[in-house]
Amino acid sequence: MIDFELTQSFFNPSSIAIIGASSNEKKTGSRIQRYLVSHGYKGRIFPVNPNRDNIFGLKCYPNLKKINEKIDHIFIALDGNKIIEAINDAVSLNVKCATILSGGFSESGSEGLDLENEILDIANKGNIRVLGPNSIGIINISDSVILSANAMLELPNLKKGSLSVISQSGSLIGALLAHGASRGIGFSKLISVGNEADLSVGEIGKMLVDDVDTDTIILFLETLRNSREVAEMAHLAHKSGKAIITYKLGKSDLGKELAKSHTGAIAGSDEAFNAFIKYNGMSRVEIFETLIEVPNLFKNKVIAKGKRIGIATTTGGGGAMVVESISSSDIEVINPGSSMSSLMKQYNIPYNDNKLVDLTIAGAKPEIVNDVIKEFMENKNCDLVVMVVGSSAKFRPDQAIEPLLKWANNSKPLVVYVAPDAPEALQLLNKNGIASFRTPESCAEGIKAYLNNKSPKTIDNNYEQINFNKIKTILKSVKYKNLTEFEALKVFDIMGIKTVRSKIVSNILKSRELTMEFGFPLVMKILSSQIQHKTDTGGVELNITSEADLKNRHKKLCKVFDKLEVKNSDREFLLQKMEIGITEIILGYRVDELVGPIVVIGSGGVLSEIYDDKSVRIAPVDFKEAKKMINEVKSLVTITGYRGLPRADINILANAIVDMSQLASIKAIKEAEINPVLIKEGLEGVVAVDGLITLY
Amino acid sequence: MIDFELTQSFFNPSSIAIIGASSNEKKTGSRIQRYLVSHGYKGRIFPVNPNRDNIFGLKCYPNLKKINEKIDHIFIALDGNKIIEAINDAVSLNVKCATILSGGFSESGSEGLDLENEILDIANKGNIRVLGPNSIGIINISDSVILSANAMLELPNLKKGSLSVISQSGSLIGALLAHGASRGIGFSKLISVGNEADLSVGEIGKMLVDDVDTDTIILFLETLRNSREVAEMAHLAHKSGKAIITYKLGKSDLGKELAKSHTGAIAGSDEAFNAFIKYNGMSRVEIFETLIEVPNLFKNKVIAKGKRIGIATTTGGGGAMVVESISSSDIEVINPGSSMSSLMKQYNIPYNDNKLVDLTIAGAKPEIVNDVIKEFMENKNCDLVVMVVGSSAKFRPDQAIEPLLKWANNSKPLVVYVAPDAPEALQLLNKNGIASFRTPESCAEGIKAYLNNKSPKTIDNNYEQINFNKIKTILKSVKYKNLTEFEALKVFDIMGIKTVRSKIVSNILKSRELTMEFGFPLVMKILSSQIQHKTDTGGVELNITSEADLKNRHKKLCKVFDKLEVKNSDREFLLQKMEIGITEIILGYRVDELVGPIVVIGSGGVLSEIYDDKSVRIAPVDFKEAKKMINEVKSLVTITGYRGLPRADINILANAIVDMSQLASIKAIKEAEINPVLIKEGLEGVVAVDGLITLY
Repeated sequence: MIDFELTQSFFNPSSIAIIGASSNEKKTGSRIQRYLVSHGYKGRIFPVNPNRDNIFGLKCYPNLKKINEKIDHIFIALDGNKIIEAINDAVSLNVKCATILSGGFSESGSEGLDLENEILDIANKGNIRVLGPNSIGIINISDSVILSANAMLELPNLKKGSLSVISQSGSLIGALLAHGASRGIGFSKLISVGNEADLSVGEIGKMLVDDVDTDTIILFLETLRNSREVAEMAHLAHKSGKAIITYKLGKSDLGKELAKSHTGAIAGSDEAFNAFIKYNGMSRVEIFETLIEVPNLFKNKVIAKGKRIGIATTTGGGGAMVVESISSSDIEVINPGSSMSSLMKQYNIPYNDNKLVDLTIAGAKPEIVNDVIKEFMENKNCDLVVMVVGSSAKFRPDQAIEPLLKWANNSKPLVVYVAPDAPEALQLLNKNGIASFRTPESCAEGIKAYLNNKSPKTIDNNYEQINFNKIKTILKSVKYKNLTEFEALKVFDIMGIKTVRSKIVSNILKSRELTMEFGFPLVMKILSSQIQHKTDTGGVELNITSEADLKNRHKKLCKVFDKLEVKNSDREFLLQKMEIGITEIILGYRVDELVGPIVVIGSGGVLSEIYDDKSVRIAPVDFKEAKKMINEVKSLVTITGYRGLPRADINILANAIVDMSQLASIKAIKEAEINPVLIKEGLEGVVAVDGLITLY
Repeated sequence: MIDFELTQSFFNPSSIAIIGASSNEKKTGSRIQRYLVSHGYKGRIFPVNPNRDNIFGLKCYPNLKKINEKIDHIFIALDGNKIIEAINDAVSLNVKCATILSGGFSESGSEGLDLENEILDIANKGNIRVLGPNSIGIINISDSVILSANAMLELPNLKKGSLSVISQSGSLIGALLAHGASRGIGFSKLISVGNEADLSVGEIGKMLVDDVDTDTIILFLETLRNSREVAEMAHLAHKSGKAIITYKLGKSDLGKELAKSHTGAIAGSDEAFNAFIKYNGMSRVEIFETLIEVPNLFKNKVIAKGKRIGIATTTGGGGAMVVESISSSDIEVINPGSSMSSLMKQYNIPYNDNKLVDLTIAGAKPEIVNDVIKEFMENKNCDLVVMVVGSSAKFRPDQAIEPLLKWANNSKPLVVYVAPDAPEALQLLNKNGIASFRTPESCAEGIKAYLNNKSPKTIDNNYEQINFNKIKTILKSVKYKNLTEFEALKVFDIMGIKTVRSKIVSNILKSRELTMEFGFPLVMKILSSQIQHKTDTGGVELNITSEADLKNRHKKLCKVFDKLEVKNSDREFLLQKMEIGITEIILGYRVDELVGPIVVIGSGGVLSEIYDDKSVRIAPVDFKEAKKMINEVKSLVTITGYRGLPRADINILANAIVDMSQLASIKAIKEAEINPVLIKEGLEGVVAVDGLITLY
């Protein structure tokens, strides 16, 4: 639960001490006091600086202890050891909150990390919660507490609104403020979290969920430091009807980094992050501006019932740009139907039953615009209305924008793209709570983000009886962190996934009865915990067709062991029935660094790496979700009866995914992968023929 | 060649008659005269309207003939038959140019098309060149000839610049003007081409290439009506050092439409358009705003020598957004090296040899910003410098923007992304000719478009001796527009592509000696010009292993003929040697509706449709280009020695592509496709085992 007293001293402290206050306007240290005052802070301010008696007309103190008044929140604009002194003082004065502006901590190396830990230690013991270090501060516009060094606070009037921001980039808060200001978008609270040494995105987010002045929360993220807290925040936000919209950096580079590791190549962390976002009912956008333009859509009291949109325009080209960006998704641009045709006829506007209702020639006449919007609002096949406004937005807002205003919060959401640069039009729309966009790209992205947003998931974990104890026993008995293929397949088998018939043979002479049992063709593989990549080292012999063949292949594998200098005691062979499928996939489980357990399926074989064709979810998943995953892997269309090809039983494959995802219950497992799972025709189902498991 | 007299009367007429002039300010017809006057037109204006004597203080004429003065250009704001009357009058008065505003022509159906053709006929015979119909007019800012009805012309001052626009959307010209105005970007000429019934994008573009006031040409396209003219314009522009940057609609919808047709599914028209753009040395952007933001980069007197960029920022998050968007391309973000480290040390700025030189903590101090830019400008590994500016751009342009100005047109191009909404900063940058961007996405796209731009291609056609006459003889002898497989393979064989050994057998009894000649296994197919899709109808029997097998398969194929009710005289069978490859591709040739002959290669088999993995070029291609195409098909990495898989001879495949692309020399062929081309190991090369050719 969020502590009310903490929230108060964090967002709305009644007194603030500024450690490292400065009277030099050019210095960052001066900004805190200046901005607090210029934006109307009503509490008490105590500048602290041993070299000054007075700063900007306020008495200045040599240190915290000399203040002798109740202090709610301290803002530290000093470096290194001076911070420790300040925190120590604050503990003794029973201060609730400290914001640390300075950098040079965990983000800059091990020395900084040590200092950060030391500060945190003192703070924890002294019951002080810390924002930062490396935080540009807290901008609480609703309560006029502007406790931040961001240069954008030179803006004379900060517009109040219901949008709140949590950002891991301090400087971008300024950019968001400026982009908001030019569009007439107001904010409630903007918080720069810095290194999140103590207070993290999730915990601050929960305060915002409880905040009556906040309707929508936007997150600017560079990483994810405490995914559990963020998930909790998301669930609470959903319950309170507040949307969370994120922008996250680290797509490309992280992807590359992770591609280096084996399972990483299957599921780069960015896909895991996307899975996390969807799982928790949040939205993610990839165009920076969408972040501040889309919230009005989420704030709508009415909720779109489906993904069918109606679109009208007073600029043909502008409307077409939006349609184009949207039509690559599963959102349907509706055919407006016969009553729209009648309306167009009535107004004598040329119209060939196009999906885009083009009023370019008619121009932006208020009554026409109004009637077209009305027609869409009343159309049962339409879930959301898009209006694209041309040049008239700039010079005739009375004709182009005003007719739209009354449709705010009507029976369906209304979205506007303003094609020319027309800040006044955007301001008018935002003032009336209508989601409005500066570019066709952000307009399309905003609509997609809104219409694709879903509630957070809850997984019913009771549908399956897996003998987890048996697995834990195996895991305790293994010698190495990398399980052998035989051990791994055994685990998968217990999980409920059908595995290939396998036996370990140490001596080829003893294999006779096995070959009788399995029948030819067979597969023989080297088995040694010393060797991770059997295939790359020539350690797999496929399609062994006779006893004689088996002997030859065995000899070849012995040579592989020789070459790899595996000692005799560590040499074994795995004999397996040779299985044939109609296609193959990779089925993986991994504890992602950022978001925790995930399950992945991807197309198998050589092309898996080439096409990066996969689906990722937070683990565990249920049967329904597993089926959706199968649908997302493009190549798997080939097992659904495509072009007369043999058809597989999708339910059996879905069950295997569900089973694999249950590994999330076993904390000892870091990653697991079945590569490949052979998919057979119809009820023959699936069979795991090779796999690995890595423990922590 | 462009006619000087035409250019004059088109862009800079000394007298203009307005047919359908209006004194009612609310009517579109009034705008032409009002805008001409308000923007300082110095020539003579003749309003024409039989119901008025005087419009806005100028004498008004009942019709053109009554004017009795030399008229250079008429602007027609009337509908239907009145246009014909006006054009007829104009012919008799020796007018050079007519701009037609009205819609309702070819874009609205067959009646409109008839009217359009009638007008065009009169104009052609009378030597009048026509802009439109459906054109919003010509905005010539350099010479103060504002001959347009676009509402955006209410803007009091139109800024002069060297950017010219040709647009198939009239209304978007207003949006471009407004976006330019807010950024301080000036224009030279903006032309709305409408239906291009006469004057087309290419021809107008050539006038702009010759125009001393135009440095860069941007095209807003919805289609491509005369690709030959556009290609000519592009080549001329390249010679004159003027860049052409395009935005084109129709990506998604056209793609879908074309996917319906057989070869269309291989190469949607949008890929063909991209091939056309690259072939002709133009650039294409997909973010609307990039269109007006990127030109300064192309106007640079200095040219980037490679694709290595250096990037500095005063907002960490802002810089990271640009890096992120760029790093998914082949552009390298350089490591700034040791002298940058020294510089950072000198200024006491924390810096861990990051690729992104982050000055957030240092703030935007002019001397630091200057020295960092200087360092990049002097770094031999850096071809282009990117500066990302944070909050300071808004309040301290002296500190954040002014230090950048002197680096305009220095030894390397400089690009700026302004993270906050800061129009003044953008205006200052644009005034100094520095490419500056409002969003991280357009910044990254602009850099990519610029660094990936290449010169127009010229293909050396003399490297190959193909017996085109022999092919033409075959084409004349065929019965149907769809060649039989046997006929198609024969053509491919003459083109120089190895084809499978094939013979037609009408009677199974006579196949004995053939089987001796080819050897088993064999393939047998039905052959009838009545049947296009052999495989879908069960008309292909693979892997025939014996005489007995052959007889059985023949019976099956006879039943297929029975089922399809093919008459006996039209039944034949194709017997082929069964070929096996290490992979297969589709090799296609097609005359694209918009851009003309193209050649396509794509991955073959079931996955070809699923992954849409292909490469498209304007045909013909040379050997070097063919090798690049192979590189672009992702799945073909598997034949280059990937993961120990068998390796093919890429040169042989490249030659096959070159041969296929030579079909561009045979005008009778509409499309051709080899599906599949089997690719064999090493010097065994490639072999075409099935194909089709369709004639016009």
